[in-house]
Amino acid sequence: MGRPFRARLGANENGFGPSPRVIAAMSQAAGDVWKYGDPESFALRSALAARHGVGIGNIVVGEGIDSLLGLVARLYIEPGTPVVTSLGGYPTFNYHVAGFGGRLVTVPYDGDRENLEGLREAAIRERAPLVYLANPDNPMGTWWDGAEIAAFAASLPETTMLVLDEAYGETAPASALPPFDTGRPNLLRMRTFSKAYALAGMRCGYAIGEAETIRAFDKIRNHFGMPLITQAASLAALEDEAHLAATLDRIAACRRRIAGIAAAHHLKAVPSATNFVAIDCGGREIAEAVMQGLLARDVFVRKPATPGLDRCIRVSVGPEDEIACFEEAFGEALAAVHNRR
Amino acid sequence: MGRPFRARLGANENGFGPSPRVIAAMSQAAGDVWKYGDPESFALRSALAARHGVGIGNIVVGEGIDSLLGLVARLYIEPGTPVVTSLGGYPTFNYHVAGFGGRLVTVPYDGDRENLEGLREAAIRERAPLVYLANPDNPMGTWWDGAEIAAFAASLPETTMLVLDEAYGETAPASALPPFDTGRPNLLRMRTFSKAYALAGMRCGYAIGEAETIRAFDKIRNHFGMPLITQAASLAALEDEAHLAATLDRIAACRRRIAGIAAAHHLKAVPSATNFVAIDCGGREIAEAVMQGLLARDVFVRKPATPGLDRCIRVSVGPEDEIACFEEAFGEALAAVHNRR
Repeated sequence: MGRPFRARLGANENGFGPSPRVIAAMSQAAGDVWKYGDPESFALRSALAARHGVGIGNIVVGEGIDSLLGLVARLYIEPGTPVVTSLGGYPTFNYHVAGFGGRLVTVPYDGDRENLEGLREAAIRERAPLVYLANPDNPMGTWWDGAEIAAFAASLPETTMLVLDEAYGETAPASALPPFDTGRPNLLRMRTFSKAYALAGMRCGYAIGEAETIRAFDKIRNHFGMPLITQAASLAALEDEAHLAATLDRIAACRRRIAGIAAAHHLKAVPSATNFVAIDCGGREIAEAVMQGLLARDVFVRKPATPGLDRCIRVSVGPEDEIACFEEAFGEALAAVHNRR
Repeated sequence: MGRPFRARLGANENGFGPSPRVIAAMSQAAGDVWKYGDPESFALRSALAARHGVGIGNIVVGEGIDSLLGLVARLYIEPGTPVVTSLGGYPTFNYHVAGFGGRLVTVPYDGDRENLEGLREAAIRERAPLVYLANPDNPMGTWWDGAEIAAFAASLPETTMLVLDEAYGETAPASALPPFDTGRPNLLRMRTFSKAYALAGMRCGYAIGEAETIRAFDKIRNHFGMPLITQAASLAALEDEAHLAATLDRIAACRRRIAGIAAAHHLKAVPSATNFVAIDCGGREIAEAVMQGLLARDVFVRKPATPGLDRCIRVSVGPEDEIACFEEAFGEALAAVHNRR
């Protein structure tokens, strides 16, 4: 629109920002960027392995989860391959599936959560070699308990690979994350530094899985793809546990703040385990009008397009000054919508 | 080996380092890395378009040339597709060809240069939809004149895409680079910030081609793959033309320095238009022994493995302290080899 947003709350970024230690590590690494990064990301993978109690051979690092999803699509999909995901789930996964000629089989949400039983049935019915599940999910922010996720994974055929996207894993209750089971060849769990660690602009994601499953990535990945500075930044982010804890507190407080803004307008916020909150505006047309009203007031939010979910707008957490902008603009946008009626 | 190299001259990096303005731009951008980078790399592509006198729609940016080569392979290769390249050419291109099931058709070098006539004949004979040519080339550092490259491109069938890898374009004589012709749908020219701009650890490459050819990348690329900080660093690098000019002078001087070291031992350096020099050691076994002798002395260099080229070691340019290390270790390694005989 030719002018900056007053509040950037639409891309599920983390406006609380990265650790000062990350900034320092990036300054430190800046002078070294004439060198290629380590193609093995050895230091980062070692630290991740220690953090999660898995082997370094159970981890592959990539240019964001998006990149790893592209590699998964390439590994598991041939033209016509059925791939199961939720209707309204992560569009970039669908993009990669389509790009490799896969056939998407979608299962509607059930009560604002991804439908585990429906996904399982579809995977079995279609003999799908690939199922995608986000926990917590995007765009609704809901989640399943880790025990239910583990049972879901165990219930899938051995010939079905489950991609469990835990991009929002850190912001979820610990109970939402099952323990790592790297003995299971048909499970890949994905994490990222883009959300809780506030490094979306550095591009670092990783997948954890059984060692042979992980080795398959080495046959096709862009070996020198991980920038040296991204490896340094991600490692520093992982090491600053105090900053992560403080960020998670701020995210949780901001979720409550956004839910409070919704409640002040007699609207319901969908319970969220992520760094965003879906606000139920009561219907698709109202939600669309409210989002347009917010954009017109230079407040960037987004909304799901999928029937059933499209009654919501999706508001990312952020610093209080941006949330205050949202609060004001949201009230104005709602009033304008109601005045039009 | 558990200890750092004294001289890192094996990966064709640019140890003269990036512009101070790049470091400053990275510091400036560091606080913004909670945001996703622009998926269109608009500012960077605009600057590149202005620099090269092409349209922004003629440029795609990717995570290094390596990443773009992977996308090219995906776009043009089906299992069994013949792909023509030089025997001993860039292994990462071959990796991507193999990864998509292509059939490599290789043409030996001729007089330490890629064999244009041989490549053309192979492309026509095999009806190859894809030909790869590096100018200047790696691992020998030789080059063709731009007029010869243009004639080569024009001589290929319309159904053959020429990937012209100009990773070392900036370090070459201007005469080696034909003018951009973005009307030609079967030509993709690739450039990088990893070499002359000393940003190997940031991962930024780009391809220039006809607009529809470029648009094909948008259907499959990792749209959010370019780190925000990489876009900022690359843009700053592009803008500091004085630093580039100074770097190119240093590279040229260092090529002469390395050739002088070779000459002092009565060895010939292959003329180079790149940031490395291939030294002809007179035979495969001697070259291998010399390289091992250098590695044992903590001097990192590499050598071609291809018959005919394998009589050389490949020494990247670098700061004088590292070149002095190389000079000393090279003399020792050569003496050790001759003493064994």
